[in-house]
Amino acid sequence: MSDAHEALVVFTPSGRRGRFPVGTPVLEAARALGVDIDSVCGGRGLCGRCQVDLCEGRFAKHGVSSWPDHLSAKSDTEQAWEKRRGPLRDGRRLSCSTLLLGDAVIDVPPASQVHRQIVRKRAEVLDIALDPIVRLYYVEVQEPDMHVPASDMRRLKEALAHEWRLTGLETDIRVVQQLQQALRRGGWGVTVAVHDDRRLIAVWPGFQAQAYGLAVDVGSTTIAAHLCHLQTGEVVASTGRMNPQIRYGEDLMSRVSYIMMHPSGDQAMTRSVRDALNELTVELATEADVPLDAILEATFVGNPIMQSLVFGINPVELGGAPFALATDEAIDGLWATEMDLAIHPNARVYGLPCIAGHVGADTAGMILSESPYLGEELMLLVDVGTNAEIVLGNRHRLLACSSPTGPAFEGAQISGGQRAAAGAIERVRIDPLTLEPRFKVIGGELWSDEPGFDAAMASHGITGICGSGIIEVVAEMYLAGVITRDGIVQGGLAARSERIVADGRTFAYVLHRDATRTIAITQADIRAIQLAKAALYAGIRLLMEHFGTDRVDRIRLAGAFGAHIDVKYAMTLGLIPDCDLAHVTSAGNAAGTGARIALLSRKARREIEEVVRRVEKVETATEPRFQEHFVAAMAIPHRHDPFPQLSAHVTLPAVTEDASATARGGRRRRRQRA
Amino acid sequence: MSDAHEALVVFTPSGRRGRFPVGTPVLEAARALGVDIDSVCGGRGLCGRCQVDLCEGRFAKHGVSSWPDHLSAKSDTEQAWEKRRGPLRDGRRLSCSTLLLGDAVIDVPPASQVHRQIVRKRAEVLDIALDPIVRLYYVEVQEPDMHVPASDMRRLKEALAHEWRLTGLETDIRVVQQLQQALRRGGWGVTVAVHDDRRLIAVWPGFQAQAYGLAVDVGSTTIAAHLCHLQTGEVVASTGRMNPQIRYGEDLMSRVSYIMMHPSGDQAMTRSVRDALNELTVELATEADVPLDAILEATFVGNPIMQSLVFGINPVELGGAPFALATDEAIDGLWATEMDLAIHPNARVYGLPCIAGHVGADTAGMILSESPYLGEELMLLVDVGTNAEIVLGNRHRLLACSSPTGPAFEGAQISGGQRAAAGAIERVRIDPLTLEPRFKVIGGELWSDEPGFDAAMASHGITGICGSGIIEVVAEMYLAGVITRDGIVQGGLAARSERIVADGRTFAYVLHRDATRTIAITQADIRAIQLAKAALYAGIRLLMEHFGTDRVDRIRLAGAFGAHIDVKYAMTLGLIPDCDLAHVTSAGNAAGTGARIALLSRKARREIEEVVRRVEKVETATEPRFQEHFVAAMAIPHRHDPFPQLSAHVTLPAVTEDASATARGGRRRRRQRA
Repeated sequence: MSDAHEALVVFTPSGRRGRFPVGTPVLEAARALGVDIDSVCGGRGLCGRCQVDLCEGRFAKHGVSSWPDHLSAKSDTEQAWEKRRGPLRDGRRLSCSTLLLGDAVIDVPPASQVHRQIVRKRAEVLDIALDPIVRLYYVEVQEPDMHVPASDMRRLKEALAHEWRLTGLETDIRVVQQLQQALRRGGWGVTVAVHDDRRLIAVWPGFQAQAYGLAVDVGSTTIAAHLCHLQTGEVVASTGRMNPQIRYGEDLMSRVSYIMMHPSGDQAMTRSVRDALNELTVELATEADVPLDAILEATFVGNPIMQSLVFGINPVELGGAPFALATDEAIDGLWATEMDLAIHPNARVYGLPCIAGHVGADTAGMILSESPYLGEELMLLVDVGTNAEIVLGNRHRLLACSSPTGPAFEGAQISGGQRAAAGAIERVRIDPLTLEPRFKVIGGELWSDEPGFDAAMASHGITGICGSGIIEVVAEMYLAGVITRDGIVQGGLAARSERIVADGRTFAYVLHRDATRTIAITQADIRAIQLAKAALYAGIRLLMEHFGTDRVDRIRLAGAFGAHIDVKYAMTLGLIPDCDLAHVTSAGNAAGTGARIALLSRKARREIEEVVRRVEKVETATEPRFQEHFVAAMAIPHRHDPFPQLSAHVTLPAVTEDASATARGGRRRRRQRA
Repeated sequence: MSDAHEALVVFTPSGRRGRFPVGTPVLEAARALGVDIDSVCGGRGLCGRCQVDLCEGRFAKHGVSSWPDHLSAKSDTEQAWEKRRGPLRDGRRLSCSTLLLGDAVIDVPPASQVHRQIVRKRAEVLDIALDPIVRLYYVEVQEPDMHVPASDMRRLKEALAHEWRLTGLETDIRVVQQLQQALRRGGWGVTVAVHDDRRLIAVWPGFQAQAYGLAVDVGSTTIAAHLCHLQTGEVVASTGRMNPQIRYGEDLMSRVSYIMMHPSGDQAMTRSVRDALNELTVELATEADVPLDAILEATFVGNPIMQSLVFGINPVELGGAPFALATDEAIDGLWATEMDLAIHPNARVYGLPCIAGHVGADTAGMILSESPYLGEELMLLVDVGTNAEIVLGNRHRLLACSSPTGPAFEGAQISGGQRAAAGAIERVRIDPLTLEPRFKVIGGELWSDEPGFDAAMASHGITGICGSGIIEVVAEMYLAGVITRDGIVQGGLAARSERIVADGRTFAYVLHRDATRTIAITQADIRAIQLAKAALYAGIRLLMEHFGTDRVDRIRLAGAFGAHIDVKYAMTLGLIPDCDLAHVTSAGNAAGTGARIALLSRKARREIEEVVRRVEKVETATEPRFQEHFVAAMAIPHRHDPFPQLSAHVTLPAVTEDASATARGGRRRRRQRA
């Protein structure tokens, strides 16, 4: 079939094919055909990024017989690479050092593609391709010549233009400062980092293939960070820690109050969060054995107040109406040094855009990660914290709001509440006949009615109830008839069960009692949960009303709360509207995933910047309808909304009227925002 | 003539004319006609930059009768302005607050034009128009509204787009950080500084019209700086000081040696020059009563080693062949903070490009200032320092080289030499009959043979001889026959004059003798001057040869040396080639002027960046012809080049041969570069 002087090569998965003279390097053939194969070293057998597989056999559909001897034997370059880096896996070859000797079918594995996908998205939308803003290039530069007095920089740029077709590059001063020594130490070979195809931001002597990026989600309680390899997209280390700003106030509003009362308080908080970021970065770099100056890019998400403090913007304006953001644009191209980040001093920082005074870059990250804007499906995204951020929409329209749920879902303002930690009750079931509970505790595998439970609890004890535990116990109390749909603990049941006890003028349900403590769900606890869930539901309902719908196709619950609650109970309580339970799922740390996507894809940055501009912001604080929705949502699961899909899984109690709850709901104070 | 409802207005000097409804503000009419009138405040009567003159009378050529009552009476706005800023001079009016009531001829004085010329250039070339890279704009921004949650930045940008047609602006993080407070303090009016029409770099509450720039010439001996008003181009303060790097070495080579021997020596020198720059900046700002953070731009020129050290680039590569520059591009858009400059932290810095290892940004500045590249005339530019930078060319071709003249022209390596300061002999005449000298001393107005001279000298004495004095005395010695054309002091004349004295195996000429000291010109001094002038002339000749010419049309001498020497004597000695003496002039601090032009004109930056790329670099160190030219130039004025134009002014002695000089010249050591 094949001409003696030419070889036919077919690349998969692209299917691109062409004939080349025998002796052509595989990488060169791939380049000529526009096949996506990565390379940092420019085909010098240094980086190992251009690995390919030979597909052996007769490929009728390609019309090619592809056999091992159709490629050149392992070259000295490949052998040297293997000596340094270990054997090439699965018989792979370095395409730069392997010559075509006959027809061949060559597979380019995902790891060798420049534009491989970075995050698995829903089936119906396009994947996001790896396209980091920083790329590395190795070049060999001509030595200086007194007769042609071109500067080292000019010769470097000539080499970059010639080898990599990079032209019109701008240059950071540190690169100019370091270039001469790097060239001479590297024997006129250097690796440069190019930002956004247009600016030299780093130079190293010789070949170096390490370029990393940080993706950070700065929450008011927790900071979570991922260290990613920019060329592979791989997360090489992840970590989290408490936000040290907690010492200035547990929640956002108390931090803003601190700033209002302390001149330079904002600067102190900015310093404290940046210090934590640096500690966290060192931890990540150490864990992954990555030098700090190989970290060349960082992306940040956070709620508006956290995002402001990270970027040194005083957030006081977000503490009161009209809640004006300093900027609702992305923070782009900021130098790491301007944030005192202990990464490469020329590294750049990208902050996702905030959307409105209460809807932050974390919500933008969630939108980017979940991408409701790409599909027809009507998607509801909910991130529950002290505020709930709510996004509703599809490719046609996108709405967002923030609703002041307060900290009850996190176990605060609950008599026996605590953070989700060992000793916290997280799962609860109540027998509707005996009203006896059984429960599970974080740190243990057993239910409380199983043998060995007490022994298992001995080390940490049973110390309280966490967010998911509260949702379940209140929902179970409702399903067992301990509380009415209006949330009243039925004192009449005290006669039937010792679990129902008088608590002043109201009643409480005793979930657990031991020598150390009693964990009871009081009437006040039920009210706190009702207020929180009514705020969340009212926000959702407001968006649905603005959208003109009374159903949603899919619900994604972001954040730690979303990851731990049982959606059936959340819906039973009426936190979220009725929906096919199979379509209500956790989105994990969607905000952090958004930061990671923005770290790895330039296109994603432009995409989210464009999408957030289209988001319709709904202001719950000034919407008269919000209050109506709120009052109706005080009932469990709701005053009048039906839950037909939930009813297929859960037997909801028959309705009994209780007028007092509505009145109380109406009297509720508007709590702090944030 | 005029319609009751319309007025005809003619603007001068542009000649643009048009009819406008009675009641139109003059500024609005000007804008509609594209007449160049400045404004920072957008027509709010705050900045006073839009002042115009009414031309009174009947203007037949315009067909207009222009009378005072054709303009509205002084408005409240104008009166308020005068109250704040003093009366408008010469009956001028604020065009924004003055309405057209009838036909008028309106003159826009240069001070009110945005694009007025900044530097007087030669008649045959175009002037450079004021076009600073930083401009100020006052805007009033909509207050935030909870129902339209656009950020403060978005509303600022909307105002800038609407009022000033500025779109697509990027933003420095400090502007984001300061914006909210500035808007609220300024009652929603702020002034912003925009860099290069595309980036917000500063914001102030309310109206502020101060934007300044620094233009700095960093010499190895002296740093000179100008503070300029960016909107008017006016130099508001100038100052200079010694370069403190002198403590690391008097000349450039000894500083490079210091760096080679001391690790981090380059950083110490960078710090020391930057410290001096900051002291000098504070001095300028204090003198002109300008706040440091109103300085928004700075430009720098210097020789390659100084320019490197200012920008934190280790200059060791410039200490030896092949003299590779780190970069020969302009340093553009550097943050002031990256240089630790104590001006506005978002101010940007521009460094003119270096041309080659020995031809620096100071030469680029000189080229920009003198602009030989614009005319047909063949121009020779010479900047004499320890090295001489030489540029030859016209609009067709431009050549440059550096020649190692050494420090003799500055009075170093001369027995009685000193820097140009009080007490230094600067002018010398020798009577060819008696061989008696007369001279003038810096700090005095009298010649030494005039009555009262001794008394005038009493305070500082006569301490030595400076560069211009040495040129004159050696030239006069030649014209008086004290030395031959080969520079030999004629010992035979000792019999005729006591001024000629034996000095070891050679002779010296006693210029001055008093109780304290004897100032004599020794044979070694003559040799030092011959070596220096031969190096300079050889460099010039080399460029002329490369250009293919044996005459030049014009010679411009830059720097302090050029400003003080008498060109007739310089030509008599053969420092420079024969030329019409009327066309040999001082260019002043042309390098510094170049920095100032680059500060005030973006176009000039692009111009010089493009021109330096076309400059043909001639390397004297490797050109075999240089040595030949050098040897021939040891003779006074030259071994064989004729000086016909000089001869019209000076009677050159008849030639007497003296073979020894040539031999000695040939033995000369190649001195240090720089």
